[in-house]
Amino acid sequence: MAGAGVFSEILDGDAYKYYSNGEWKKSSSGKTVAIVNPTTRKTQYKVQACTQEEVNNVMELAKSAQKTWAKTPLWKRAELLHKAAAILKEHKAPIAECLIKEIAKPAKDSVTEVVRSGDLISYTAEEGVRILGEGKFPAVSKIGPALIAGNSLVLKPPTQGAVSCLHMVHCFHLAGFPKGLISCVTGKGSEIGDFLTMHPGVNCISFTGGDTGISISKKAGMIPLQMELGGKDACIVLEDADLDLVAANIIKGGFSYSGQRCTAIKVVLVMESVADALVEKVKARVAKLRIGPPEDDCDITPVVTESSANFIEGLVMDAKDKGATFCQQYKREGNLIWPLLLDNVRPDMRIAWEEPFGPILPVIRINSVEEGIHHCNASNFGLQGCVFTKDINKAMLISDAMETGTVQINSAPARGPDHFPFQGLKDSGIGSQGITNSIDMMTKVKTTVINLPSPSYSMGSSGSSIRSRI
Amino acid sequence: MAGAGVFSEILDGDAYKYYSNGEWKKSSSGKTVAIVNPTTRKTQYKVQACTQEEVNNVMELAKSAQKTWAKTPLWKRAELLHKAAAILKEHKAPIAECLIKEIAKPAKDSVTEVVRSGDLISYTAEEGVRILGEGKFPAVSKIGPALIAGNSLVLKPPTQGAVSCLHMVHCFHLAGFPKGLISCVTGKGSEIGDFLTMHPGVNCISFTGGDTGISISKKAGMIPLQMELGGKDACIVLEDADLDLVAANIIKGGFSYSGQRCTAIKVVLVMESVADALVEKVKARVAKLRIGPPEDDCDITPVVTESSANFIEGLVMDAKDKGATFCQQYKREGNLIWPLLLDNVRPDMRIAWEEPFGPILPVIRINSVEEGIHHCNASNFGLQGCVFTKDINKAMLISDAMETGTVQINSAPARGPDHFPFQGLKDSGIGSQGITNSIDMMTKVKTTVINLPSPSYSMGSSGSSIRSRI
Amino acid sequence: MAGAGVFSEILDGDAYKYYSNGEWKKSSSGKTVAIVNPTTRKTQYKVQACTQEEVNNVMELAKSAQKTWAKTPLWKRAELLHKAAAILKEHKAPIAECLIKEIAKPAKDSVTEVVRSGDLISYTAEEGVRILGEGKFPAVSKIGPALIAGNSLVLKPPTQGAVSCLHMVHCFHLAGFPKGLISCVTGKGSEIGDFLTMHPGVNCISFTGGDTGISISKKAGMIPLQMELGGKDACIVLEDADLDLVAANIIKGGFSYSGQRCTAIKVVLVMESVADALVEKVKARVAKLRIGPPEDDCDITPVVTESSANFIEGLVMDAKDKGATFCQQYKREGNLIWPLLLDNVRPDMRIAWEEPFGPILPVIRINSVEEGIHHCNASNFGLQGCVFTKDINKAMLISDAMETGTVQINSAPARGPDHFPFQGLKDSGIGSQGITNSIDMMTKVKTTVINLPSPSYSMGSSGSSIRSRI
Amino acid sequence: MAGAGVFSEILDGDAYKYYSNGEWKKSSSGKTVAIVNPTTRKTQYKVQACTQEEVNNVMELAKSAQKTWAKTPLWKRAELLHKAAAILKEHKAPIAECLIKEIAKPAKDSVTEVVRSGDLISYTAEEGVRILGEGKFPAVSKIGPALIAGNSLVLKPPTQGAVSCLHMVHCFHLAGFPKGLISCVTGKGSEIGDFLTMHPGVNCISFTGGDTGISISKKAGMIPLQMELGGKDACIVLEDADLDLVAANIIKGGFSYSGQRCTAIKVVLVMESVADALVEKVKARVAKLRIGPPEDDCDITPVVTESSANFIEGLVMDAKDKGATFCQQYKREGNLIWPLLLDNVRPDMRIAWEEPFGPILPVIRINSVEEGIHHCNASNFGLQGCVFTKDINKAMLISDAMETGTVQINSAPARGPDHFPFQGLKDSGIGSQGITNSIDMMTKVKTTVINLPSPSYSMGSSGSSIRSRI
Repeated sequence: MAGAGVFSEILDGDAYKYYSNGEWKKSSSGKTVAIVNPTTRKTQYKVQACTQEEVNNVMELAKSAQKTWAKTPLWKRAELLHKAAAILKEHKAPIAECLIKEIAKPAKDSVTEVVRSGDLISYTAEEGVRILGEGKFPAVSKIGPALIAGNSLVLKPPTQGAVSCLHMVHCFHLAGFPKGLISCVTGKGSEIGDFLTMHPGVNCISFTGGDTGISISKKAGMIPLQMELGGKDACIVLEDADLDLVAANIIKGGFSYSGQRCTAIKVVLVMESVADALVEKVKARVAKLRIGPPEDDCDITPVVTESSANFIEGLVMDAKDKGATFCQQYKREGNLIWPLLLDNVRPDMRIAWEEPFGPILPVIRINSVEEGIHHCNASNFGLQGCVFTKDINKAMLISDAMETGTVQINSAPARGPDHFPFQGLKDSGIGSQGITNSIDMMTKVKTTVINLPSPSYSMGSSGSSIRSRI
Repeated sequence: MAGAGVFSEILDGDAYKYYSNGEWKKSSSGKTVAIVNPTTRKTQYKVQACTQEEVNNVMELAKSAQKTWAKTPLWKRAELLHKAAAILKEHKAPIAECLIKEIAKPAKDSVTEVVRSGDLISYTAEEGVRILGEGKFPAVSKIGPALIAGNSLVLKPPTQGAVSCLHMVHCFHLAGFPKGLISCVTGKGSEIGDFLTMHPGVNCISFTGGDTGISISKKAGMIPLQMELGGKDACIVLEDADLDLVAANIIKGGFSYSGQRCTAIKVVLVMESVADALVEKVKARVAKLRIGPPEDDCDITPVVTESSANFIEGLVMDAKDKGATFCQQYKREGNLIWPLLLDNVRPDMRIAWEEPFGPILPVIRINSVEEGIHHCNASNFGLQGCVFTKDINKAMLISDAMETGTVQINSAPARGPDHFPFQGLKDSGIGSQGITNSIDMMTKVKTTVINLPSPSYSMGSSGSSIRSRI
Repeated sequence: MAGAGVFSEILDGDAYKYYSNGEWKKSSSGKTVAIVNPTTRKTQYKVQACTQEEVNNVMELAKSAQKTWAKTPLWKRAELLHKAAAILKEHKAPIAECLIKEIAKPAKDSVTEVVRSGDLISYTAEEGVRILGEGKFPAVSKIGPALIAGNSLVLKPPTQGAVSCLHMVHCFHLAGFPKGLISCVTGKGSEIGDFLTMHPGVNCISFTGGDTGISISKKAGMIPLQMELGGKDACIVLEDADLDLVAANIIKGGFSYSGQRCTAIKVVLVMESVADALVEKVKARVAKLRIGPPEDDCDITPVVTESSANFIEGLVMDAKDKGATFCQQYKREGNLIWPLLLDNVRPDMRIAWEEPFGPILPVIRINSVEEGIHHCNASNFGLQGCVFTKDINKAMLISDAMETGTVQINSAPARGPDHFPFQGLKDSGIGSQGITNSIDMMTKVKTTVINLPSPSYSMGSSGSSIRSRI
Repeated sequence: MAGAGVFSEILDGDAYKYYSNGEWKKSSSGKTVAIVNPTTRKTQYKVQACTQEEVNNVMELAKSAQKTWAKTPLWKRAELLHKAAAILKEHKAPIAECLIKEIAKPAKDSVTEVVRSGDLISYTAEEGVRILGEGKFPAVSKIGPALIAGNSLVLKPPTQGAVSCLHMVHCFHLAGFPKGLISCVTGKGSEIGDFLTMHPGVNCISFTGGDTGISISKKAGMIPLQMELGGKDACIVLEDADLDLVAANIIKGGFSYSGQRCTAIKVVLVMESVADALVEKVKARVAKLRIGPPEDDCDITPVVTESSANFIEGLVMDAKDKGATFCQQYKREGNLIWPLLLDNVRPDMRIAWEEPFGPILPVIRINSVEEGIHHCNASNFGLQGCVFTKDINKAMLISDAMETGTVQINSAPARGPDHFPFQGLKDSGIGSQGITNSIDMMTKVKTTVINLPSPSYSMGSSGSSIRSRI
């Protein structure tokens, strides 16, 4: 149970505490922020509304704890990460429960998410074979690299997902990391969001989200940024494509976790001659999706907030007004939106360009490959894209022409294993993701040059340099 | 002669034109900006005061020219760079003249600067054995990497140095680079500075300078930054140091190009017991420095602007008021400031912390190594530092403790060869310098993943990825 | 003219001298070895038959010269290489003449070869954009890496090509390399071949050739080997291939330099259903090849020795006896063999497996892709292979299944640019080729570990290491 | 207990079986080889004397098993390695017992060795934070890299250590690796040693040992070799060295595991002026070493074979005859040799050059640094060396001058962490050690080049390459 057992100390009455100086604390603000369950649309949890003074305090502690941490041998850092990973996996049930209640992630997927997060921490510690979790637990893909690289960190989770994050932090607490090294503050963005972003103590910002990221990038000063923002990943389908393969990938790529993934397929660009056939195949598969609450392991669950659902509905209504073909009837109950394939979408519809972050997928029929590429490149986003064709020359040339960070040939967009750089172009972000890239970004190289009085035999020069990472 | 011979087409009457779409043009503003000769303090040159519309125009051209350039094979790009380098070196005389007149660089050094810039371009083209020029011709260390990596570029030189830059751009023009690929606009920072920085067409900013860089970093959005800003490089001298070696390095590191180098030694922190001896040795060497105009190849030449000279004088007067020991008499004629060693400087004097960017060097006497390290780390800057000692353990541990990007043991700070990362910490900048690092920063990696229907023998998986640089 | 002008000092009467201790010398053996012109089949040149004592001598000199060379700064080494490259290109005419007379390389190609060799040396010096020459001038792709890495070297050119090599060495002599650093001995393999291979002073062997390489590898002791031996590169042609593209690649890949290239196409494996059409297209192109002496820039010139020609004829006669279809009549005059396409070759014929190193190309008709892969993998060689198909899945899976160092999709085998590893599997060699790989192989890494009395801040440990290349 | 519990199936009566095709088998030879306990000098174990036919058989199986293994995803390979590591650590007691009885490794160290070997396998699987075990269990540092890289392997352990190795192999068997992938044959070197070395099925040889390695390198053909042979690591002590630090390092570096380590200090070269003081300090520490059987955790235990002990005694007697100063009395009981420091050793004594591989350490007094360097470089070996001094310039210049793979400043020679290359020069071996280097050596790179009909935007060329490891 969330907030019970070993987690009981992170709860005070009905409000979760925040984490500072190795202790769980109530905010001096006396206020809390409510978290609404997307399924029930009722308040599920409450978290502390931290003050700027409390933020200042964790920043101070972080600076001081980091000095010692950076001198801690690598193997000791790795040992603590392994321990935290084990604790996290041991307590998968209560944490998965938070994910279900906060972001309506299907039950089985929630458990998998926690287990994979634990694995990810271990893998980070080993810098080895890697997987990268996707979903609403992004802190994990950043916390591991930060710690193994010798940094301290201050987490500010999004409201929706805050309690899951607090539980995760508690696992690190239980693992025995030094006081002050990790802190987690909660609260209103308006109160402590910009304050944190522009805090002089901050040496690096890693952010996952939408438009807020663009504004953060304009406020942050001369520090490295890692931004993982939106996408409008296109799926270009040529005439010689294997349509069953395409349909399976559209379902997996467009509707899993109700389309709320940054690398979801967000628009299908299909050659007119095969469009009817493809749409039929996708429709048949949409009909088999199970819709309902996350607790029942449904394929389509409520979207994460009511405002999200309203935004999606706005896109649907706009498409309706402008004449899109509805392959299914539009249906919504609270935050739960039934999966919907919109055929014959045209560039004047908002859904052709905007990111629904929900189970709504537009199909644009194209008459040439160039038309497809043009639509893809006219987008503000540039995360990934995919193309389905058997022809090796066409595949490579289309991949070439698509202005996105990654192009998948004959498969849906997906984060790859860690040695694939995962980086969006344009408004999709800045800074490569992945464990290795994250460790790099969170590390500074320092050079020590030993200057010798005479030329050195082995170097053909009179200096030698040592580079270390700080 | 500057503006003569092959360069006559870049001059219109007494005003230099700007470069756009492969042509030299007058600005529609009808206005010019004057460039004052630091030695004579009279207007030497005039450059166009470009308009925002003209900036928009070069941005458009750059975007379109880049598309073709990126498809140009690497060897062709390299060939053009080699050609530009040869032209630059062929015309070293008129360009060196500009450096003398604009920034008072000593005559011989000015010629060397142009030749080394040409070499640097060739080396960049070859990605090979490297040198890195230092001085006021920084565009060269950025223009080569940008072009070889397939980018277009828009240059906005600082006013002081603008005409040298225009001559250099003309060499690229003569080499035959495609129209619009390279542009060079001149004008007032207040008119087109921020306009350029925040222009949506900009994909990367590389800036060399002072405080302006920090403000640029706050205005620029989600794009990579390379900032090479100020420094206050400390020279820590222990009791067992070879004092003649130290004195020679202080003269070279503190007074060459009149101290106007970002990696100049800007404060000496010497153990009390050897301070008298060291100060005597440095004084003896200062006495031998030749002071005068750059045309006479003097060691100490006028500082770059009158406001610079006034700023330096302010630091000197503050030190005088607070009781610093003057090892030479303070002397100034116009922008020309005589070299000055200030002994017994204390932390309450501005010169202990601020960067004079002139031939003024403070000596702080310390009683322990810790005191020296503390002073060094209390600075806002973190570029380089140096320590003089024969003891291997002390050398490494002090290097370790200094919070700067590079530490030199037994030599003055200096940009190293390119495989040494050159990166300042704190307010000294962001983004590693050096040809390789610059090429990396100006390049995006794109991944194409070929997904196969069955596991592949060679990969133990069913996907294969191609990474290319775009 | 070969042996004239600046080269006159390398000639003594009608015999070329060998190079030792920075001087051109006659062997104390008083004997010479004759070099036969493949076109005229008469003695063209004579070279010294060096003695084992002379070999010992150059080995001693090399060891001593290397000590100083390794301390020579990298840029100075590069400078000398650039100078040698310029001299080589300046004297392209007499050196190309040697190539024509010694190995019957077409005149125009011979000139190109020398120029590209000069470029290659420059590129090596720069470690930059690279090309790799192919042909009979292999010393160049090894001499550059060896020298830039700080090594000395002793060359023993193959008899056919020895005089070209002596001219090339003279260009390095003229460039001013230190005495003893480079030596070039000529003579009989039986006298000094094994003696050199097993000489205790040898630290690395780089060999290009055939079966001799395998025997060298068994005699050499514990030193790194770079062996570039034979190949039997297969060309697999699927039913959907672009047959005109295939035919053009077969002519270029199979018949250029009369098939005497290690990466020549040496067997065509074509699907039965398109075999007739492909054979017709290739026949039509073979008919257009010009046959004759290298001086006339013919496509097909005499093969390099009479024994080579006899060996090729043996393969042809065996194929005739066993019923292969001759697409052209077999014709030979001296060492000149007319291009010949052999259709319907079967596995029991020698030409199906052996490497002719001449203008003879077998076609095996296959009924399945598996049959083609099986033939390819049953070979003792494993250099390169190519497959022609438009289907992306088939292309990758066939590439996957072919046991060769490189597979080309839709193009003939070829050395790639240097960043492609060029390494044969099985009997095709050991050690990666290419400038970068060669530099690596010819370099040893040495580690210096500085152990400190207490943990270091930047390293989280108490040791720091410096690696240098020796 | 060795051969009991889960290990009972590897024992047949009193003889251990060999491992082939996933099963434990008796050799058809009907013969066994005896293993003598170094402490008791009685037969402790017997292993199968395998036949050449049995070797042929495991080679066949290895070839076929490898094909499937190479297609096994990396994470599955890693999973099996982790499992094997866990089993190995679980059964540390019986395996440590074998080490005690076979090679007289002290009891506590034997247990540590097994545990570290298990850790090493896990770390290899993760390619992560690394340690490298030293001692007599070398197969572990090779088996992990070979398997993770997708290879099969045939082990032939040295007689002394064979049973430990068989137990270790059984742990891999229990972990469930595919049949035939791993085999372990035992027997006489004279019967199957060369037969294995020159077997055409062998693609790579990794060997640890002495002179045999040099002869193997001359018999093996065109395959990569990894040879970890002897050393005569020198310890140069300057006048300013911290003599307590030196003495502690001489004890640790020269006497641990009775001097039977390839990176043991094997000769001390000390400046005359500090020699008396150093020898006294070392003598005092030698007096505290505990001598006796490995079961009692003594510091000095019996050397591994009687012939070893005899060889060591020969070196001692030679030194005695030629006048070396004995700091302790020479004492030997069976294979147990008391620790002995020999002072005033001179170059005419064998101990000055030969490697005792026992607890005997010569001290040579030098009058200049050059004398020390000269002695070090005159050795046939070139593994590591160390120098003790506080002076940074001397430390680096001596390190520079020593012709060894690694130089330690102010510490005894030691394998470093894996990212330090561990490679001997001269007769000390070929091929870098360490997990990363081993994986590299055991991996071949294969290139697939996709050739496109027109230039590609992202590449500025019309080809794209994929490199994979096979």
